[in-house]
Amino acid sequence: MCLYLYLLCVCVCIWPECVLNVKKLLVSLASMEWYCYALLGIITALMSFFMDMTVAKLLNAHQWLYGCLKGHHLLQFLCWTLYPACLCALSTSFAHSVCPYSAGSGVPEARAILLGVDMPDYLSLSNLFAKMFGLICTLAAGSTVFLGKVGPFVHLSIMVGAFMNRLHVSCRGGKQRAAKGEMLVVASAVGVASCFGAPISGVLFSIEVMGTHYSVSDYCPCFFAAACGAITFRLLSVCIGDQDTIQALFKTSFSTDLPFQPFEIIIFALLGLFCSILSCIYLLCHRWALRFVKTNKPISTFLATEKSLYSAIVAFLLACFTFYHSAGHFIASELTMRQLLTSMLDGTSWYNISQNISALPEPQNTFWQAWNPPGKSYFQTLTFFIITKVGLLVVACTLPLPAGYFMPVFVYGAAVGRFIGEGSFYLLSGGISSGKSLINPGGYALAGAAAFSGAVTHTLSPALLAVEMTGQCSYAVPALVATLVSNAVARAKHRPSFYDGISLIKRLPHLPSLIRACPKLADVQIKQFVIPAGAVLERSEKLISVQHILKESTDSELPVVESRDFSVLLGTINRSQLRECLLEHRNEDSCKQLEEVCCVQPVRLHLTPDSTVKQAHCIMSITGEQRLFITESGRLCGVITWKEMKKIIEEMAKEV
Amino acid sequence: MCLYLYLLCVCVCIWPECVLNVKKLLVSLASMEWYCYALLGIITALMSFFMDMTVAKLLNAHQWLYGCLKGHHLLQFLCWTLYPACLCALSTSFAHSVCPYSAGSGVPEARAILLGVDMPDYLSLSNLFAKMFGLICTLAAGSTVFLGKVGPFVHLSIMVGAFMNRLHVSCRGGKQRAAKGEMLVVASAVGVASCFGAPISGVLFSIEVMGTHYSVSDYCPCFFAAACGAITFRLLSVCIGDQDTIQALFKTSFSTDLPFQPFEIIIFALLGLFCSILSCIYLLCHRWALRFVKTNKPISTFLATEKSLYSAIVAFLLACFTFYHSAGHFIASELTMRQLLTSMLDGTSWYNISQNISALPEPQNTFWQAWNPPGKSYFQTLTFFIITKVGLLVVACTLPLPAGYFMPVFVYGAAVGRFIGEGSFYLLSGGISSGKSLINPGGYALAGAAAFSGAVTHTLSPALLAVEMTGQCSYAVPALVATLVSNAVARAKHRPSFYDGISLIKRLPHLPSLIRACPKLADVQIKQFVIPAGAVLERSEKLISVQHILKESTDSELPVVESRDFSVLLGTINRSQLRECLLEHRNEDSCKQLEEVCCVQPVRLHLTPDSTVKQAHCIMSITGEQRLFITESGRLCGVITWKEMKKIIEEMAKEV
Repeated sequence: MCLYLYLLCVCVCIWPECVLNVKKLLVSLASMEWYCYALLGIITALMSFFMDMTVAKLLNAHQWLYGCLKGHHLLQFLCWTLYPACLCALSTSFAHSVCPYSAGSGVPEARAILLGVDMPDYLSLSNLFAKMFGLICTLAAGSTVFLGKVGPFVHLSIMVGAFMNRLHVSCRGGKQRAAKGEMLVVASAVGVASCFGAPISGVLFSIEVMGTHYSVSDYCPCFFAAACGAITFRLLSVCIGDQDTIQALFKTSFSTDLPFQPFEIIIFALLGLFCSILSCIYLLCHRWALRFVKTNKPISTFLATEKSLYSAIVAFLLACFTFYHSAGHFIASELTMRQLLTSMLDGTSWYNISQNISALPEPQNTFWQAWNPPGKSYFQTLTFFIITKVGLLVVACTLPLPAGYFMPVFVYGAAVGRFIGEGSFYLLSGGISSGKSLINPGGYALAGAAAFSGAVTHTLSPALLAVEMTGQCSYAVPALVATLVSNAVARAKHRPSFYDGISLIKRLPHLPSLIRACPKLADVQIKQFVIPAGAVLERSEKLISVQHILKESTDSELPVVESRDFSVLLGTINRSQLRECLLEHRNEDSCKQLEEVCCVQPVRLHLTPDSTVKQAHCIMSITGEQRLFITESGRLCGVITWKEMKKIIEEMAKEV
Repeated sequence: MCLYLYLLCVCVCIWPECVLNVKKLLVSLASMEWYCYALLGIITALMSFFMDMTVAKLLNAHQWLYGCLKGHHLLQFLCWTLYPACLCALSTSFAHSVCPYSAGSGVPEARAILLGVDMPDYLSLSNLFAKMFGLICTLAAGSTVFLGKVGPFVHLSIMVGAFMNRLHVSCRGGKQRAAKGEMLVVASAVGVASCFGAPISGVLFSIEVMGTHYSVSDYCPCFFAAACGAITFRLLSVCIGDQDTIQALFKTSFSTDLPFQPFEIIIFALLGLFCSILSCIYLLCHRWALRFVKTNKPISTFLATEKSLYSAIVAFLLACFTFYHSAGHFIASELTMRQLLTSMLDGTSWYNISQNISALPEPQNTFWQAWNPPGKSYFQTLTFFIITKVGLLVVACTLPLPAGYFMPVFVYGAAVGRFIGEGSFYLLSGGISSGKSLINPGGYALAGAAAFSGAVTHTLSPALLAVEMTGQCSYAVPALVATLVSNAVARAKHRPSFYDGISLIKRLPHLPSLIRACPKLADVQIKQFVIPAGAVLERSEKLISVQHILKESTDSELPVVESRDFSVLLGTINRSQLRECLLEHRNEDSCKQLEEVCCVQPVRLHLTPDSTVKQAHCIMSITGEQRLFITESGRLCGVITWKEMKKIIEEMAKEV
């Protein structure tokens, strides 16, 4: 005991020295931010993994209870419907009582934050906890509410990134802003990477989410952190014995000798076209539903006061529909989302299985029984699934709880792909006569998933994500072709993407989505919104008057002009620097002039009132400038900071 | 005959109408630039494919001749040495007589062009032909000179892109500049994609090659064109019957059940470390060799006059060394670069093969015999290969002909990886006792190739390229880990990359590489280089004097100031607009003032002399501004165009 105490004392004594030495050693190897990136990846991966584990346990508990009640239809019904209803109510009430900003996907907000807009409410610690707990509940509600993880997880990762940034700043101080932007971009890549163990898609996602310009200096950090996240996430599975080694999340075993014939490229392109048409319908319904919920008086007043009840009712209704003995057995509702995707990506065609059912190995047997309920063929179930799930998904999207909308769309796309794939298999293998064909419906499911989710979100990274998630490259080209075709149609005629739609409806300060919806906004000049600079110093200002101005203003930087009448901008003075100057010269003659005691920092960039808002936004988000001065013939006429920019964009959003 | 003539006449008559109708139909589907992107991809893929085919035929001819001369050592020696020497001489003389700018890789120049610097010599038609013909000759010289295709091919693709841009501009006019930049970025992605049939790596390459900021609006075009290029390139192989379907260029068949064990990640990281150290040595030698060739009086004077002879001599010396009966049989010199890579990526370990040589299938048998010459083990050949190839490669890099340096580095890295892989296999499988181990040396070769080429070029895309080239994802994570580690070490302490080194030595106007080599240049202010604006108009300028000024100046845009003494910048007037105004008012009183007849366009962005060069460069390359005005307190004090920017960067390069 004494020895332990002694050791403890020694430890406490040499602890600070140790920490310093370790820090020195680490910093000598690489600069501090790289450790922050690695830590960001590891923390996010841990969060993702434990979230997945908790959700799996909760889902298992539900399935176990449901299984125990076999034979008692009413009890089974109650179990099936009340479990998700309670979880959704819990998720909503927790999220809204802790942090009302935690509802929804978070990606639209993240996009605005990544461009530089300050939205501290969306990066708070309370939001982190609310979102995490809420998301676990939502995911545990299973395939009944059919919601996913990616969006909120990217948001969570960005919150962790913001905290890592604070840690980094507290470690060394200075350059907070520029570093912050970088850390958040890295965090967005890490979010996707740790969610699926797919590092390269994570990086592509971080490029796409940036909207206008991607700084190439963020590229390496993104790759590094995403690799750390993805490897940790997959290694954890190895640690608990789920897998033998680092492998793909939804590993497939398609034949690689002849994965597809060249002519099939055309079918894949048609699949992309079909997916894009479906995506347009889905997006239209989704925007209509969001507007309806917002504008319909009874529903909006009910939602304003009774969010949890609304969630519970909607989840209950969804569960009623998906209950096995109502419509559930037509849409394989007993499978979890993971099982749905795995069943769709299976390399053996269902036609072949139907010819040779005897001794089907698990889990193929479960999947087969789910997709082939008594009296129905798999074509009928797939068709019914595709038709009804759009509606169910649109309804689920109105739930005011933390939830992702990417994975449902991905699974839905896989179903569409599987449908086309099974159809092609059936038609091209000569119908019932010969059961042999080279077409692999699993590959179509993969391409369909990429194409549909790509069309909904207007991104191309799902094509690579599908490859990384399945661990096989053989269908990379078909997936890319389908995604490109679906994107081409989905983006035509300035149609907004899923995230753009939410941004517009929520009136988020995200300029690129505004411009996409209304291209003429790109030419709006800044002169309509010029906000006069607050406190201004004259070059010959007396120190005593400087002191007055300093007291009244809160700006961190004050512009200095020639004189108030002839306000040619000379430069700026930092607040802290000004204070130091004043302190230094407090005992001297207070009639001294400003230019005698202080050094004016030159302003490197002037905008004129004729500059467009888009230009100002672009320059601010790229150069990391916190404040742009607007001058006309050299005279200061206004100033723009991110706060003003946010107001300007919100103002512009009203015009759309 | 008459019928044919009649049909021809009808065709000629309705031809213009037909073209117009087709054009209308196409434009109604998508805007014209998308067809240009597709065409760019297809043309580049065709070029790549026919280049590959020609090179393969020339290589086969050499091998056939060499085989015919079996038994006659002297004749074999002459055949082995004179063939590449002649080809190299031909390549050099053709390239230099048609267009001297066509020598070298072209990637360093492409990087400068992509950032906006005007280098018309590097985009000329003569350069295209010189580079293409020269490259075919260089590649046909085979593994003796050990040079590759990627770099020049990216340059070729960018030239095609520039032509497509002209085509596009001639189709619709206007917006030439911005579109040009986009087309060239797309072309860089297409170059890599059509070279290897790897679309996604192409896109990543285009991001990395941009250096500072990547415009996200280029992302979709890049993907689209790269996919078109890659698919066409692979479909052509299918058409000529080389392959059954679209598959990877170097398709491997690694086991996917347990591609690697988790602990092997550490070996892969060590492999990355080893590769990065080797890359530092290689880059050091390379830079030293380039400087030596440039500064050594006898060699530089010889090179200035007798480039072809120099190439021939160097190629002859290299061939002497790689001749089978000299040192060639220690370095598997009889294999082509393609065969070298295929042999290295083979999934069966050579240790296993050595235990069971009987009935080895082709082509494994050829590879085995090449790597296991009589009296030597494969370890000895690999070691000798790794040691000597660095030297040979450095010598080959001094050749003044169109040649790529990526593929040699990639193959070399694969050899390093194979060496480590075979070593690990031998050690971890318990030496001679048990021949069974789970380690796959092919996977190490893949990771080594990615890591070494990534370290040399300071890029991460080789990790994905290795995956796309082999068509298997199983080693994506190890390749990524090795590449990240090797990049981390290679980039440390501001070491320049391969391309940066060439940029610095050739004094190319590429700012990012200058800043990387000498970080303090990032703070150089523009005031040191301010170039006064040429012709300036006064607001109250008389029309007659405007006419004079217009005659004397060649600027496309003229700044308008308050007065010459008090030169506050008011805006600019376009040259063509000014001319129109003058024409309109030619009959009126020529004492009329400028502001009465012309509308002055406002200037949206002012820089001050305190702006840094980096800032100005960044703003110009991102916003696409062709001309930035520098004002001090509103007064015009200078102007920067790309021409001036080029001069400034060249000036700064002298300081490094």
